[in-house]
Amino acid sequence: MRTRAAVALEAGKPLEVMEVELEGPKKGEVLVEIKATGICHTDEFTRSGDDPEGLFPSILGHEGAGVVVEVGEGVTTLKPGDHVIPLYTPECRECASCLSGKTNLCTAIRNTQGQGLMPDGTTRFKMLDGTPIYHYMGCSTFANHTVMPEIALAKVREDAPFDKICYIGCGVTTGIGAVINTAGVEIGATAAVFGLGGIGLNVIQGLRMAGADKIIGVDLNDDKAEMAKKFGMTHFVNPSKVENTVQAIVDITKTDFDQIGGVDYSFDATGNVKVMRDALECSHRGWGVSVIIGVAPAGAEISTRPFQLVTGRVWKGTAFGGAKGRTDVPKMVEWYMDGKIEIDSMITHKLKLEDINEGFELMHAGKSIRAVVEF
Amino acid sequence: MRTRAAVALEAGKPLEVMEVELEGPKKGEVLVEIKATGICHTDEFTRSGDDPEGLFPSILGHEGAGVVVEVGEGVTTLKPGDHVIPLYTPECRECASCLSGKTNLCTAIRNTQGQGLMPDGTTRFKMLDGTPIYHYMGCSTFANHTVMPEIALAKVREDAPFDKICYIGCGVTTGIGAVINTAGVEIGATAAVFGLGGIGLNVIQGLRMAGADKIIGVDLNDDKAEMAKKFGMTHFVNPSKVENTVQAIVDITKTDFDQIGGVDYSFDATGNVKVMRDALECSHRGWGVSVIIGVAPAGAEISTRPFQLVTGRVWKGTAFGGAKGRTDVPKMVEWYMDGKIEIDSMITHKLKLEDINEGFELMHAGKSIRAVVEF
Ligand SMILES: [Zn+2]
Ligand SMILES: [Zn+2]
Ligand SMILES: [Zn+2]
Ligand SMILES: [Zn+2]
Repeated sequence: MRTRAAVALEAGKPLEVMEVELEGPKKGEVLVEIKATGICHTDEFTRSGDDPEGLFPSILGHEGAGVVVEVGEGVTTLKPGDHVIPLYTPECRECASCLSGKTNLCTAIRNTQGQGLMPDGTTRFKMLDGTPIYHYMGCSTFANHTVMPEIALAKVREDAPFDKICYIGCGVTTGIGAVINTAGVEIGATAAVFGLGGIGLNVIQGLRMAGADKIIGVDLNDDKAEMAKKFGMTHFVNPSKVENTVQAIVDITKTDFDQIGGVDYSFDATGNVKVMRDALECSHRGWGVSVIIGVAPAGAEISTRPFQLVTGRVWKGTAFGGAKGRTDVPKMVEWYMDGKIEIDSMITHKLKLEDINEGFELMHAGKSIRAVVEF
Repeated sequence: MRTRAAVALEAGKPLEVMEVELEGPKKGEVLVEIKATGICHTDEFTRSGDDPEGLFPSILGHEGAGVVVEVGEGVTTLKPGDHVIPLYTPECRECASCLSGKTNLCTAIRNTQGQGLMPDGTTRFKMLDGTPIYHYMGCSTFANHTVMPEIALAKVREDAPFDKICYIGCGVTTGIGAVINTAGVEIGATAAVFGLGGIGLNVIQGLRMAGADKIIGVDLNDDKAEMAKKFGMTHFVNPSKVENTVQAIVDITKTDFDQIGGVDYSFDATGNVKVMRDALECSHRGWGVSVIIGVAPAGAEISTRPFQLVTGRVWKGTAFGGAKGRTDVPKMVEWYMDGKIEIDSMITHKLKLEDINEGFELMHAGKSIRAVVEF
């Protein structure tokens, strides 16, 4: 069949909207009509050419929502008409990783996904001249239709609006999941969140859900504070306005009883390795847990004195918020529909596919939290 | 009173055995007759002058066992005749750290201890000419008698031999505790231990106790393998004899079911920051936990790509094996007496106080696992 897609033809160039050929679903695959897709920093990381593993031409996009159109041979858990959210982290429930019960990083299709291919080693998309187009993060949601493995689709309730729940396909789950799955924040905890963009706001609302007491937001831009407060931030630190960011955070958490100070949990949502170090070092001696969420530039390294760890701090990271997609994403959708989590105010812009490059410009200019393309 | 001690007069010089003045216990303090003390790498770190926080003159030693001689005002949990192990990590059971239930790093007397002083800000030791002598790690076990805070003494059973259980005051608890308290190793786990000295051997026996399946020892010296096998090591890797240490370890852990590989837990007992990185990176994608035990040189930093953490590895550290001294050290002594843990074969040398500098030489030459001074 033919469908319309925004194609990344070359690194650093704007996407080009065009007709492309899409082959139907093979064994274990599903054809999905994408109804809405968010534009995420990771798409831009690849589009710009900064991603050393970026492949071109490809159809980017990994934060979508849509409807099943057709299922391939052997697909048993989905049928035409089902509402789904594509998962760049699949959940096969059969591999060593899934069965470990200790990670969401399913490895069933990792190799082919990393090469921009479906599990059988081929692509479903091609240009009208026959040139194959790579898949992206196993999703390629910047297309009106896409083909995905059954294990990479979360079935969600049908009354949930596509233009909101698409954000659960990446940002919402990443931020909230980092709090509840990776950090395991408990009621009464203190926390610091570095970077108050889309991910940071979702970390903050995750902390509010988890019952954290002090929720300290950190951002160089004072304008970010207002929105963050609405999501649950209780204290704000602008690193450009304090002598020492780590000390400022430690001071906020000191009490008469605890003169050591430091947050129980910290989260980096900036991707800056220097900030990651501050996030670790502002966490509490003895038990502070610091979680890296942001994606760092290629080659960048984190560092600290081992003393920071020997005195009890824990450094960890999270991918897709530690969420098991087919299991946890439908729950996130329920939480949204029940009003437990807020998404609407973060969807600041709606675009048509033709205007998708505007979405990237809005992101660059810091004007959007999330721009969503509706088909 | 007067007692005999090995005094570190100056950085880099051998210790000098001499008579010193010791003031009796003040409020909350206890006078202990030291019966035996191990010589640990940390003592050498300070003696050599490598420790930027080293103070002189001081009485080093932090791995002792002895008998209570006299108690100061207000001491309620100890009485003359009790057998005790000095604790460089005290356990007050009242501070924010102790009451958190999340760390062993009691902060009740941290500030004065770091300054080589008793909690009231003074020293009990002085030279015969009246010059104050600093305490060391709150213990100063290289003296026939020492004064310690009540909260820094673990009461242990009286039939346990001093010349063996002194090792529980540091090395044994650090190694075994890293496994059971900090890492929380479970039955059937796989693990790698970097550095097969005294700490490494105790990590290995901790892993055996915890029921680990594959216990991979890593050391540049093949001669270390034999002893390590006796303590439970199942596989040995000599980094100088493989192309890539991380890959060699990963390969050992791969199975038909798990083609990713990597150890569930890794431990650095070398203090080398490059080795710490290998230890992290050989741990399993998705859930590997790497624990830093070794003390790095001043100013040294650990580093890695954040991707290592984002894909599920956890970097942490341990001090005194995460053990709460007054609670856990008596249990370690029980385990030794019950034959659950092995110490005797690690005490490779016994010395008199006069010969304490020989103990440092044996350590330098790699000839001892533990040299113990008996009074
Ligand atoms: Zn994303
Ligand atoms: Zn899987
Ligand atoms: Zn020691
Ligand atoms: Zn305490």
